[in-house]
Amino acid sequence: MSAHARPGELTATTRNEGVDAAVAAARRVIAALLHAGDGSAAEMASVAEQLDAVAEHLEKHAPTREERLVDMWAGEGVTRHDPVTGPENAIAPPLHLVGQEDGSIEGRVVLGMPYQGPPGCVHGGISALLLDHTLGVANHWAGESGMTGTLTLRYHRPTPLFEELVVTGRQVSVEGRKIRTTGEITANGEVCVSADGIFVNAHLARPR
Amino acid sequence: MSAHARPGELTATTRNEGVDAAVAAARRVIAALLHAGDGSAAEMASVAEQLDAVAEHLEKHAPTREERLVDMWAGEGVTRHDPVTGPENAIAPPLHLVGQEDGSIEGRVVLGMPYQGPPGCVHGGISALLLDHTLGVANHWAGESGMTGTLTLRYHRPTPLFEELVVTGRQVSVEGRKIRTTGEITANGEVCVSADGIFVNAHLARPR
Repeated sequence: MSAHARPGELTATTRNEGVDAAVAAARRVIAALLHAGDGSAAEMASVAEQLDAVAEHLEKHAPTREERLVDMWAGEGVTRHDPVTGPENAIAPPLHLVGQEDGSIEGRVVLGMPYQGPPGCVHGGISALLLDHTLGVANHWAGESGMTGTLTLRYHRPTPLFEELVVTGRQVSVEGRKIRTTGEITANGEVCVSADGIFVNAHLARPR
Repeated sequence: MSAHARPGELTATTRNEGVDAAVAAARRVIAALLHAGDGSAAEMASVAEQLDAVAEHLEKHAPTREERLVDMWAGEGVTRHDPVTGPENAIAPPLHLVGQEDGSIEGRVVLGMPYQGPPGCVHGGISALLLDHTLGVANHWAGESGMTGTLTLRYHRPTPLFEELVVTGRQVSVEGRKIRTTGEITANGEVCVSADGIFVNAHLARPR
Protein backbone atom coordinates (compact mmCIF):
# COMPACT_ATOMS: atom_id res chain seq x y z
CA MET A 1 0.00 0.00 0.00
CA SER A 2 1.47 3.37 -0.94
CA ALA A 3 1.59 6.17 1.62
CA HIS A 4 -1.19 7.99 -0.22
CA ALA A 5 -3.56 5.07 -0.82
CA ARG A 6 -6.24 6.69 1.36
CA PRO A 7 -7.07 10.39 1.07
CA GLY A 8 -6.62 11.15 4.77
CA GLU A 9 -3.22 9.45 5.20
CA LEU A 10 -0.84 12.24 6.28
CA THR A 11 2.11 10.19 7.44
CA ALA A 12 4.02 7.40 5.77
CA THR A 13 2.64 3.91 6.22
CA THR A 14 5.12 1.44 7.67
CA ARG A 15 6.02 -1.38 5.31
CA ASN A 16 6.72 -4.92 6.46
CA GLU A 17 9.96 -5.13 4.49
CA GLY A 18 13.12 -3.20 3.69
CA VAL A 19 14.44 -0.58 6.08
CA ASP A 20 11.05 -0.30 7.84
CA ALA A 21 11.31 -3.86 9.15
CA ALA A 22 14.87 -3.25 10.37
CA VAL A 23 13.74 -0.04 12.10
CA ALA A 24 10.85 -1.85 13.77
CA ALA A 25 13.38 -4.40 15.09
CA ALA A 26 15.64 -1.55 16.27
CA ARG A 27 12.69 -0.09 18.23
CA ARG A 28 12.27 -3.49 19.87
CA VAL A 29 16.00 -3.45 20.81
CA ILE A 30 15.72 0.08 22.30
CA ALA A 31 12.80 -0.97 24.53
CA ALA A 32 14.42 -4.32 25.44
CA LEU A 33 17.68 -2.63 26.51
CA LEU A 34 15.72 -0.32 28.79
CA HIS A 35 13.66 -3.22 30.19
CA ALA A 36 16.77 -5.33 30.76
CA GLY A 37 18.68 -2.62 32.61
CA ASP A 38 22.18 -3.40 33.79
CA GLY A 39 22.49 -7.14 33.22
CA SER A 40 25.81 -8.95 33.52
CA ALA A 41 28.59 -7.00 31.84
CA ALA A 42 29.72 -10.04 29.82
CA GLU A 43 26.29 -10.57 28.29
CA MET A 44 25.92 -6.89 27.46
CA ALA A 45 29.40 -6.82 25.95
CA SER A 46 28.26 -9.46 23.47
CA VAL A 47 25.06 -7.48 22.76
CA ALA A 48 27.17 -4.36 22.16
CA GLU A 49 29.41 -6.32 19.78
CA GLN A 50 26.45 -7.62 17.76
CA LEU A 51 24.88 -4.16 17.50
CA ASP A 52 28.20 -2.57 16.53
CA ALA A 53 28.58 -5.17 13.77
CA VAL A 54 25.13 -4.31 12.41
CA ALA A 55 25.96 -0.58 12.52
CA GLU A 56 29.27 -1.16 10.75
CA HIS A 57 27.57 -3.14 7.98
CA LEU A 58 24.95 -0.39 7.48
CA GLU A 59 27.55 2.40 7.57
CA LYS A 60 29.59 0.63 4.88
CA HIS A 61 26.59 0.61 2.52
CA ALA A 62 25.31 4.13 3.28
CA PRO A 63 25.56 7.07 0.88
CA THR A 64 27.34 10.25 2.08
CA ARG A 65 25.45 12.54 4.46
CA GLU A 66 24.96 15.11 1.67
CA GLU A 67 23.62 12.53 -0.81
CA ARG A 68 21.31 11.13 1.83
CA LEU A 69 19.90 14.57 2.75
CA VAL A 70 19.08 15.28 -0.92
CA ASP A 71 17.40 11.88 -1.23
CA MET A 72 15.42 12.31 2.02
CA TRP A 73 13.93 15.57 0.83
CA ALA A 74 13.43 14.63 -2.83
CA GLY A 75 9.75 13.63 -2.63
CA GLU A 76 6.79 15.84 -1.83
CA GLY A 77 4.40 15.38 1.08
CA VAL A 78 4.99 12.87 3.87
CA THR A 79 8.45 12.30 5.30
CA ARG A 80 9.79 8.86 6.18
CA HIS A 81 12.58 10.02 8.50
CA ASP A 82 11.18 12.39 11.16
CA PRO A 83 11.42 11.49 14.87
CA VAL A 84 7.63 11.35 15.42
CA THR A 85 6.01 9.55 12.48
CA GLY A 86 8.97 8.31 10.39
CA PRO A 87 9.01 4.57 9.65
CA GLU A 88 12.78 4.89 8.96
CA ASN A 89 13.50 6.54 12.33
CA ALA A 90 13.73 4.18 15.31
CA ILE A 91 13.28 7.11 17.71
CA ALA A 92 9.73 7.66 16.37
CA PRO A 93 7.05 5.63 18.26
CA PRO A 94 5.84 5.97 15.34
CA LEU A 95 2.67 8.09 15.44
CA HIS A 96 0.44 7.66 12.38
CA LEU A 97 -1.67 10.72 11.63
CA VAL A 98 -4.88 10.69 9.61
CA GLY A 99 -6.74 13.73 8.26
CA GLN A 100 -10.37 14.04 9.32
CA GLU A 101 -13.27 15.43 7.28
CA ASP A 102 -13.80 18.29 9.75
CA GLY A 103 -10.32 19.62 8.93
CA SER A 104 -8.58 18.28 12.04
CA ILE A 105 -6.09 15.41 12.18
CA GLU A 106 -5.78 12.53 14.60
CA GLY A 107 -3.39 9.75 15.57
CA ARG A 108 -3.46 6.98 18.17
CA VAL A 109 -0.37 5.61 19.87
CA VAL A 110 0.74 3.62 22.91
CA LEU A 111 4.08 4.77 24.34
CA GLY A 112 6.43 2.42 26.21
CA MET A 113 9.39 2.70 28.56
CA PRO A 114 11.71 4.73 26.26
CA TYR A 115 9.30 7.69 26.49
CA GLN A 116 9.07 7.79 30.30
CA GLY A 117 9.35 10.99 32.35
CA PRO A 118 7.75 10.75 35.82
CA PRO A 119 7.27 7.16 37.10
CA GLY A 120 4.97 5.26 34.70
CA CYS A 121 4.13 8.44 32.77
CA VAL A 122 5.08 10.02 29.47
CA HIS A 123 7.93 12.57 29.62
CA GLY A 124 6.56 16.14 29.30
CA GLY A 125 9.11 16.82 26.56
CA ILE A 126 7.95 13.78 24.58
CA SER A 127 4.37 15.14 24.71
CA ALA A 128 5.79 18.45 23.43
CA LEU A 129 7.58 16.60 20.61
CA LEU A 130 4.42 14.74 19.54
CA LEU A 131 2.29 17.89 19.68
CA ASP A 132 4.76 20.15 17.85
CA HIS A 133 4.89 17.64 15.02
CA THR A 134 1.13 17.04 14.98
CA LEU A 135 0.40 20.78 14.78
CA GLY A 136 2.80 21.02 11.83
CA VAL A 137 1.04 18.17 10.03
CA ALA A 138 -2.37 19.73 10.83
CA ASN A 139 -1.20 22.85 8.99
CA HIS A 140 -0.16 20.72 6.02
CA TRP A 141 -3.63 19.08 6.01
CA ALA A 142 -5.29 22.52 6.17
CA GLY A 143 -3.21 23.74 3.22
CA GLU A 144 -1.00 26.45 4.82
CA SER A 145 2.06 25.27 6.66
CA GLY A 146 5.17 26.83 8.17
CA MET A 147 7.81 26.68 10.87
CA THR A 148 7.09 26.85 14.60
CA GLY A 149 7.36 30.41 15.97
CA THR A 150 5.92 29.98 19.46
CA LEU A 151 4.57 26.85 21.12
CA THR A 152 2.79 26.84 24.48
CA LEU A 153 2.12 23.57 26.25
CA ARG A 154 -0.23 23.12 29.20
CA TYR A 155 0.06 19.98 31.29
CA HIS A 156 -3.35 19.18 32.79
CA ARG A 157 -2.68 15.71 34.24
CA PRO A 158 0.00 13.03 33.92
CA THR A 159 -0.01 11.26 30.53
CA PRO A 160 0.04 7.48 31.07
CA LEU A 161 2.53 5.07 29.46
CA PHE A 162 1.23 1.71 28.14
CA GLU A 163 -2.28 3.10 27.39
CA GLU A 164 -3.78 4.35 24.13
CA LEU A 165 -3.30 8.08 23.63
CA VAL A 166 -5.25 10.13 21.11
CA VAL A 167 -3.23 12.99 19.60
CA THR A 168 -5.16 15.65 17.67
CA GLY A 169 -4.34 18.89 15.86
CA ARG A 170 -6.37 21.58 14.13
CA GLN A 171 -5.53 24.80 12.30
CA VAL A 172 -7.49 27.61 13.91
CA SER A 173 -6.65 30.68 11.79
CA VAL A 174 -4.34 32.14 9.16
CA GLU A 175 -3.61 35.89 9.24
CA GLY A 176 -1.03 36.92 6.68
CA ARG A 177 2.03 34.75 7.35
CA LYS A 178 0.87 33.93 10.90
CA ILE A 179 -0.81 30.58 11.40
CA ARG A 180 -2.45 29.54 14.68
CA THR A 181 -2.85 25.86 15.43
CA THR A 182 -3.96 23.92 18.50
CA GLY A 183 -3.88 20.31 19.60
CA GLU A 184 -4.08 17.96 22.52
CA ILE A 185 -3.21 14.56 23.89
CA THR A 186 -6.04 12.70 25.60
CA ALA A 187 -6.12 9.40 27.48
CA ASN A 188 -9.37 7.70 28.50
CA GLY A 189 -11.28 10.74 27.20
CA GLU A 190 -9.44 13.22 29.46
CA VAL A 191 -7.09 15.93 28.21
CA CYS A 192 -3.55 15.36 29.51
CA VAL A 193 -1.64 18.01 27.53
CA SER A 194 -2.85 20.83 25.28
CA ALA A 195 -0.79 22.87 22.83
CA ASP A 196 -1.24 26.28 21.23
CA GLY A 197 1.17 27.19 18.46
CA ILE A 198 1.95 30.15 16.25
CA PHE A 199 3.58 29.08 13.00
CA VAL A 200 5.20 31.33 10.41
CA ASN A 201 4.59 30.57 6.74
CA ALA A 202 8.24 30.12 5.79
CA HIS A 203 10.21 27.08 4.69
CA LEU A 204 13.88 26.22 4.57
CA ALA A 205 15.29 25.29 1.18
CA ARG A 206 15.50 21.57 0.51
CA PRO A 207 19.00 20.15 0.04
CA ARG A 208 19.82 19.49 -3.67
CA MET B 1 33.82 7.15 37.78
CA SER B 2 30.52 7.21 39.64
CA ALA B 3 27.73 9.53 38.54
CA HIS B 4 28.40 11.80 41.49
CA ALA B 5 32.20 11.96 41.34
CA ARG B 6 32.12 15.72 40.71
CA PRO B 7 29.84 18.08 42.62
CA GLY B 8 28.22 19.63 39.53
CA GLU B 9 27.39 16.34 37.77
CA LEU B 10 23.58 16.35 37.41
CA THR B 11 23.11 13.54 34.93
CA ALA B 12 24.44 10.00 34.91
CA THR B 13 27.86 9.51 33.38
CA THR B 14 27.93 6.95 30.57
CA ARG B 15 30.06 3.90 31.35
CA ASN B 16 32.11 2.06 28.74
CA GLU B 17 30.70 -1.31 29.76
CA GLY B 18 27.48 -3.10 30.60
CA VAL B 19 24.16 -1.84 29.26
CA ASP B 20 25.64 1.62 28.50
CA ALA B 21 27.96 0.18 25.84
CA ALA B 22 25.09 -1.78 24.27
CA VAL B 23 22.94 1.37 24.27
CA ALA B 24 25.74 3.38 22.64
CA ALA B 25 25.89 0.71 19.92
CA ALA B 26 22.08 0.86 19.56
CA ARG B 27 22.36 4.64 18.99
CA ARG B 28 24.85 3.93 16.25
CA VAL B 29 22.38 1.47 14.65
CA ILE B 30 19.54 4.04 14.80
CA ALA B 31 21.66 6.65 13.00
CA ALA B 32 23.05 4.12 10.51
CA LEU B 33 19.56 2.89 9.56
CA LEU B 34 18.51 6.48 8.86
CA HIS B 35 21.67 7.17 6.86
CA ALA B 36 21.30 3.94 4.86
CA GLY B 37 17.68 4.60 3.90
CA ASP B 38 15.89 1.99 1.83
CA GLY B 39 18.70 -0.32 0.74
CA SER B 40 18.04 -3.64 -0.93
CA ALA B 41 15.19 -5.49 0.76
CA ALA B 42 17.26 -8.68 1.12
CA GLU B 43 20.07 -6.98 2.98
CA MET B 44 17.63 -5.16 5.29
CA ALA B 45 15.77 -8.42 5.93
CA SER B 46 19.00 -9.85 7.32
CA VAL B 47 19.56 -6.70 9.42
CA ALA B 48 16.01 -7.00 10.76
CA GLU B 49 16.65 -10.65 11.62
CA GLN B 50 19.85 -9.86 13.52
CA LEU B 51 18.21 -7.03 15.48
CA ASP B 52 15.17 -9.17 16.29
CA ALA B 53 17.52 -11.88 17.62
CA VAL B 54 19.23 -9.34 19.91
CA ALA B 55 15.84 -8.08 21.13
CA GLU B 56 14.63 -11.61 21.79
CA HIS B 57 17.77 -12.43 23.81
CA LEU B 58 17.33 -9.26 25.91
CA GLU B 59 13.60 -9.81 26.42
CA LYS B 60 14.27 -13.34 27.67
CA HIS B 61 16.60 -12.00 30.38
CA ALA B 62 14.52 -8.96 31.40
CA PRO B 63 12.58 -8.66 34.68
CA THR B 64 8.84 -7.96 34.49
CA ARG B 65 7.75 -4.41 33.71
CA GLU B 66 6.64 -3.90 37.34
CA GLU B 67 9.94 -5.15 38.79
CA ARG B 68 11.88 -3.00 36.36
CA LEU B 69 9.90 0.16 37.22
CA VAL B 70 10.58 -0.33 40.93
CA ASP B 71 14.29 -0.87 40.20
CA MET B 72 14.51 2.19 37.90
CA TRP B 73 13.15 4.47 40.59
CA ALA B 74 14.92 2.93 43.57
CA GLY B 75 17.87 5.32 43.75
CA GLU B 76 17.84 9.01 44.53
CA GLY B 77 19.03 11.79 42.25
CA VAL B 78 20.04 11.22 38.62
CA THR B 79 18.09 8.87 36.40
CA ARG B 80 19.74 6.46 33.95
CA HIS B 81 16.65 5.84 31.79
CA ASP B 82 15.14 9.16 30.66
CA PRO B 83 14.92 10.03 26.93
CA VAL B 84 17.21 13.08 27.15
CA THR B 85 20.18 12.25 29.39
CA GLY B 86 19.77 8.53 30.14
CA PRO B 87 22.76 6.32 29.27
CA GLU B 88 20.37 3.32 29.26
CA ASN B 89 17.97 4.95 26.76
CA ALA B 90 19.05 4.79 23.11
CA ILE B 91 16.58 7.56 22.24
CA ALA B 92 18.58 10.02 24.39
CA PRO B 93 21.38 11.83 22.46
CA PRO B 94 22.45 11.75 25.46
CA LEU B 95 22.72 15.28 26.87
CA HIS B 96 25.05 15.54 29.87
CA LEU B 97 24.12 18.39 32.22
CA VAL B 98 26.51 20.02 34.68
CA GLY B 99 25.58 22.43 37.50
CA GLN B 100 27.34 25.79 37.42
CA GLU B 101 28.43 27.87 40.41
CA ASP B 102 26.07 30.71 39.45
CA GLY B 103 23.10 28.37 40.00
CA SER B 104 22.44 27.63 36.33
CA ILE B 105 23.09 24.34 34.54
CA GLU B 106 24.62 23.63 31.14
CA GLY B 107 25.11 20.81 28.66
CA ARG B 108 26.73 20.54 25.25
CA VAL B 109 25.56 18.17 22.55
CA VAL B 110 25.79 17.56 18.80
CA LEU B 111 22.60 16.14 17.29
CA GLY B 112 22.58 13.93 14.19
CA MET B 113 20.08 12.74 11.60
CA PRO B 114 17.59 11.04 14.00
CA TYR B 115 16.73 14.47 15.48
CA GLN B 116 16.01 16.22 12.16
CA GLY B 117 12.95 18.43 11.56
CA PRO B 118 13.40 20.94 8.71
CA PRO B 119 16.17 20.02 6.23
CA GLY B 120 19.51 19.88 8.07
CA CYS B 121 17.99 21.33 11.25
CA VAL B 122 16.88 20.06 14.64
CA HIS B 123 13.15 19.21 14.94
CA GLY B 124 11.33 21.89 16.94
CA GLY B 125 9.82 19.19 19.13
CA ILE B 126 13.27 17.77 19.90
CA SER B 127 14.37 21.23 21.08
CA ALA B 128 11.25 21.28 23.28
CA LEU B 129 12.15 17.84 24.67
CA LEU B 130 15.72 18.92 25.52
CA LEU B 131 14.55 22.19 27.11
CA ASP B 132 11.70 20.67 29.14
CA HIS B 133 14.13 18.18 30.64
CA THR B 134 16.88 20.75 31.20
CA LEU B 135 14.49 23.08 33.04
CA GLY B 136 13.46 20.17 35.27
CA VAL B 137 17.10 19.37 36.09
CA ALA B 138 17.80 23.09 36.71
CA ASN B 139 15.07 23.00 39.37
CA HIS B 140 16.69 19.95 40.94
CA TRP B 141 20.06 21.80 41.00
CA ALA B 142 18.39 24.85 42.59
CA GLY B 143 16.81 22.67 45.29
CA GLU B 144 13.06 22.97 44.50
CA SER B 145 11.71 20.76 41.75
CA GLY B 146 8.34 19.74 40.39
CA MET B 147 6.28 18.75 37.36
CA THR B 148 5.82 20.90 34.25
CA GLY B 149 2.65 23.02 34.41
CA THR B 150 3.13 25.32 31.42
CA LEU B 151 6.01 25.47 28.97
CA THR B 152 6.40 28.19 26.34
CA LEU B 153 8.95 27.80 23.58
CA ARG B 154 10.09 30.56 21.24
CA TYR B 155 11.91 29.62 18.06
CA HIS B 156 14.29 32.44 17.10
CA ARG B 157 16.22 30.77 14.27
CA PRO B 158 16.74 27.25 12.93
CA THR B 159 18.80 25.01 15.24
CA PRO B 160 21.57 23.29 13.23
CA LEU B 161 22.23 19.54 13.16
CA PHE B 162 25.87 18.33 13.25
CA GLU B 163 27.09 21.42 15.22
CA GLU B 164 27.71 21.87 18.94
CA LEU B 165 24.66 23.17 20.79
CA VAL B 166 24.80 24.68 24.27
CA VAL B 167 21.68 23.94 26.35
CA THR B 168 21.22 25.96 29.53
CA GLY B 169 18.61 26.21 32.30
CA ARG B 170 18.13 28.41 35.32
CA GLN B 171 15.54 28.63 38.09
CA VAL B 172 14.21 32.20 38.19
CA SER B 173 11.80 32.21 41.14
CA VAL B 174 9.82 30.11 43.62
CA GLU B 175 6.47 31.44 44.91
CA GLY B 176 4.65 28.94 47.08
CA ARG B 177 4.31 25.77 44.96
CA LYS B 178 4.91 27.71 41.71
CA ILE B 179 8.41 27.53 40.26
CA ARG B 180 9.51 29.60 37.24
CA THR B 181 12.44 28.38 35.18
CA THR B 182 13.98 29.52 31.90
CA GLY B 183 16.49 28.09 29.45
CA GLU B 184 17.78 28.24 25.92
CA ILE B 185 19.58 26.44 23.15
CA THR B 186 22.37 28.36 21.47
CA ALA B 187 24.57 27.54 18.47
CA ASN B 188 27.65 29.59 17.55
CA GLY B 189 26.74 32.05 20.31
CA GLU B 190 23.26 32.79 18.93
CA VAL B 191 20.00 31.84 20.66
CA CYS B 192 18.02 29.35 18.53
CA VAL B 193 15.23 28.42 20.98
CA SER B 194 14.28 29.85 24.37
CA ALA B 195 11.96 28.31 26.95
CA ASP B 196 9.95 29.70 29.85
CA GLY B 197 8.36 27.19 32.20
CA ILE B 198 6.06 27.16 35.20
CA PHE B 199 6.56 24.07 37.32
CA VAL B 200 4.38 22.88 40.19
CA ASN B 201 6.07 21.50 43.27
CA ALA B 202 4.39 18.09 43.17
CA HIS B 203 5.77 14.61 42.53
CA LEU B 204 4.23 11.32 41.52
CA ALA B 205 4.75 8.40 43.88
CA ARG B 206 7.64 6.13 42.96
CA PRO B 207 6.71 2.53 42.07
CA ARG B 208 7.47 0.10 44.90
